[in-house]
Formats: sequence, structure tokens, C-alpha cells
Amino acid sequence: MRYLCEVMYDGHQFQGWQKQPGARTVQTCIEEALYKITKDSIVIHGSGRTDGKVHALGQTFHFDSSLNIPEEGWKRALNAILDKDIHITDVQTVSDSFHARFHVSSKEYTYKLNSGSCNIFDRHYVYQYNKPLNCDAMREAAQYMVGTHDFTSFNATELAIISDQVRTVYQFEITQTPEGIISFHLHGDGFLRYMVRMMVATCVAVGEGKLPASSIPDILNAKDKTAIRYNIDPCGLYLVKVHYQQKEGE
Amino acid sequence: MRYLCEVMYDGHQFQGWQKQPGARTVQTCIEEALYKITKDSIVIHGSGRTDGKVHALGQTFHFDSSLNIPEEGWKRALNAILDKDIHITDVQTVSDSFHARFHVSSKEYTYKLNSGSCNIFDRHYVYQYNKPLNCDAMREAAQYMVGTHDFTSFNATELAIISDQVRTVYQFEITQTPEGIISFHLHGDGFLRYMVRMMVATCVAVGEGKLPASSIPDILNAKDKTAIRYNIDPCGLYLVKVHYQQKEGE
Repeated sequence: MRYLCEVMYDGHQFQGWQKQPGARTVQTCIEEALYKITKDSIVIHGSGRTDGKVHALGQTFHFDSSLNIPEEGWKRALNAILDKDIHITDVQTVSDSFHARFHVSSKEYTYKLNSGSCNIFDRHYVYQYNKPLNCDAMREAAQYMVGTHDFTSFNATELAIISDQVRTVYQFEITQTPEGIISFHLHGDGFLRYMVRMMVATCVAVGEGKLPASSIPDILNAKDKTAIRYNIDPCGLYLVKVHYQQKEGE
Repeated sequence: MRYLCEVMYDGHQFQGWQKQPGARTVQTCIEEALYKITKDSIVIHGSGRTDGKVHALGQTFHFDSSLNIPEEGWKRALNAILDKDIHITDVQTVSDSFHARFHVSSKEYTYKLNSGSCNIFDRHYVYQYNKPLNCDAMREAAQYMVGTHDFTSFNATELAIISDQVRTVYQFEITQTPEGIISFHLHGDGFLRYMVRMMVATCVAVGEGKLPASSIPDILNAKDKTAIRYNIDPCGLYLVKVHYQQKEGE
């Protein structure tokens, strides 16, 4: 039987999603918990990786098991074993042809930044920028990135690895609370390595007045890995939701 | 010169306020930072202790120094040295007769509890109760505790240590967000050891239906250390504000 799981994690004490020798990663912790339940070495397949310190509200993965455990039973058993910074929020049975990575239709991310006064309680969860930013200019910059573009300039993956760096961004909205918490909401059909953080960091450079919003089309058109050098602390980034066209994978 | 400081701290990695050998405490960290600035062994005097895991938004302390550093200079120097989980929010010069503990006129505390679904990001900051509670019954219980009462039944300090356990609670209000975060706001002229947590825990017992709200006057009147045994996780507790009649101590 194949199971699709949704998982929330607090990334601040993880060296990312992907299994690596000697590192505490989300994949390692979940595979160890599955081993404790099943005594089988089960490999899980995530919707994609997240970097160290990055959080998830709705990361997904699938795994196979021949054990006859109901969906709620997997959820309860996993949560009983997992550390307090990982929590399985959903388990569903899917068809054997379903794949948590290959069948993704879109993903949503949120980046949180505090432009108000320092809040030590949020220091692992909201990037403490603690200076005001021009949100209107950032919104103008963000709108240039919405749509289907070649994002070669806005990610760290080498072209030799992924030659097609065209992606579609459906939404890039920026909201601000009265306390100065700025949230950057992104929804797209796929995001390349560091793409969300580089897009947000570029908006922040615009919000600081370092870069005009109107320069974004030129940066996109450059399709040049050296066109921008902006990146931003991973602690503010959340993988919010992974969407699938149909969970049956048919 | 005597300085009164206001400090915010994330209590989850502190063994409380009070200096203790071999323990990471807030007082120890601040005194070490003052030593780095002044090369003097300065003792700080807090408004009172907080227990391990308890947070502060506005704890206060005073210290003396003959160094000629302006108020903003102390704040900047201390924040540059202190770990990220302590932040000095205010420094003011006060008269030499002022005392951060003896001149307190009242204190405000908030206790935060999540009665909704588990939020792993808040696990050190909001007690994850994760079951619904009857807020109306809790509010009724809380109202019985407002006013001037002998709180012998509601604290852990032995009578041999503090014989006068009469305190005045000005306010005990309970609010709930749509997501189920319940906040217990308390304001009083003084709180004894575990008093806030025992008052909140007793309300929670009422909210669970384990105890009728109408039993509170009898528990108060009992003036008996064994009358109730309820306490609650320190992780949800915040010292919000320390009030002084007049900061000059005159």
C-alpha cells in the first residue's frame, strides 16, 4: 500500500529535509520513526527538498508498506515517536502509481520578515530585519515576477543541472500587519533552488531603495546567474502547501 | 549612578531568573555582560524571580555603576553582548534610593494556552493543551479570585517563609482567539510562588468540568496548602509588565 503524508516541521534545528550522513534531517527522523513502527527500512519520497532552517506547514511525502495499518493509525503512531518539532498532519492511501514529487501541480511558500521592533520570541520563525521597508515598491517589483518567465537569474541551480529554468508564478503577494510583520506569499508550478529566497531578497533590495522595481524585467531577461546576488536568511521561509492535480496519480 | 532596566527574555533555554552555580540563568547572563562592559562585578537586583521556562516581556532590574555611560549607550552595549534570547528594551537613570523589587506597585502576567490543534512552532511559547475548554466557566472561576484575598491555598510558598499571603488581584481576564489561543491576563499588587500558574491551572480544571466554578470561594477560605494540587506548564507564562508608583523612589 502507498501512503501520502502531510507534515509540519519547525526547521530551526534541522539541517534541511534531505537525508545526509551525520546530520539531523527531517527525512532521517521520519525514516527512523517508520523503522521503529515497521522494522522495515522504508525510504520516503518528499515533494522536494527544503534547506536547513526552512520550515514547513504542509510538506508532503509518500512511502510504501505492506503492513495493514489504517491511515489514522499511521498518523498516531508516527506522532507518538517523532520529536516535538515534526508533526504529521494527514495520512491518506493513494494508488501505487502516485508519486509525491513527480505529480506535484503547484506549491505555495510564505516568507515572513519583521520590519518592526525586534521580537526575540520569533527569532527562529520570522526574519528580524527590524527596519521599515517600502511595501508599495516591493509589490511593484513582485508583480514583474508573476507569470511565466525564465528564472535563470533568480536561482542557484546550475544550468548544467536543470537547463529548463522556465517556471510559472501564479501569485506573489505582499501583506503587512500593523506591527510590521511583512509576509511574502508565493504560489507557482515549481520553484528552483533558492528561487523563493532570491525573489524575496530582490524585493527587499527594492524596498530598501537599493534597486528600482523597474529593473526586474531586465534582470529576468538577462537569464544570467550573476545578474543578482541577493539572498535572505532561511529562518523566515515556510513551505505552506503542496498541490496535486489528483491524488490518485491517474 | 543607579539604572533601572526593562528586559525581554525567551525563557525556554533558561533555568529561571535567579543566579545559581552551573546554571544558565537570566541574571547570570546579564551580570556577565555588565562585567564585559565595565570590568566590575556588578550585582543586578530584579523585580522578582521567574521560574525556569517562564518568559518576560517587561521584567525589570536595577544596578549601580560609576561609569559615565548614557542610557542609550548601556542599552546598545548590553544588547550587542547578550545572547539573542535576552533583549534590553529600556534603560533609565533613577535615584539612588530606588529599588527594583521593594518599590514595585503591581505586576502583570499573561498565560497562553492553545485549546485548538497542535502548533509545533509555538511549543515553547504557548502551552499545547489541544482540547477545547469551557471559557465561560473559567471566567466565572476567575472572577472569584479578583479582589483582596488570602492566597494561602493558591501558592507554593511555605507559611513559615511568608506568613502574610494576602494579595490583591485587580484583574483576571480570559480571552480566546478564533484559532483557540486562550490568554489569561492577570494584574495584581504581588504574586506568590506558583500563584499565577496555580490560579490558571485551577481555572483550567473548571474549564474541563473537573471542578465547579462555585468551589473557588471555599478553596480561598480554606487557606490550606493542600486545598488544591493544580499547576500548569511554565512554558505559557509571561511576566508582561512591572509597575512602579514613581521611578524616583521618593
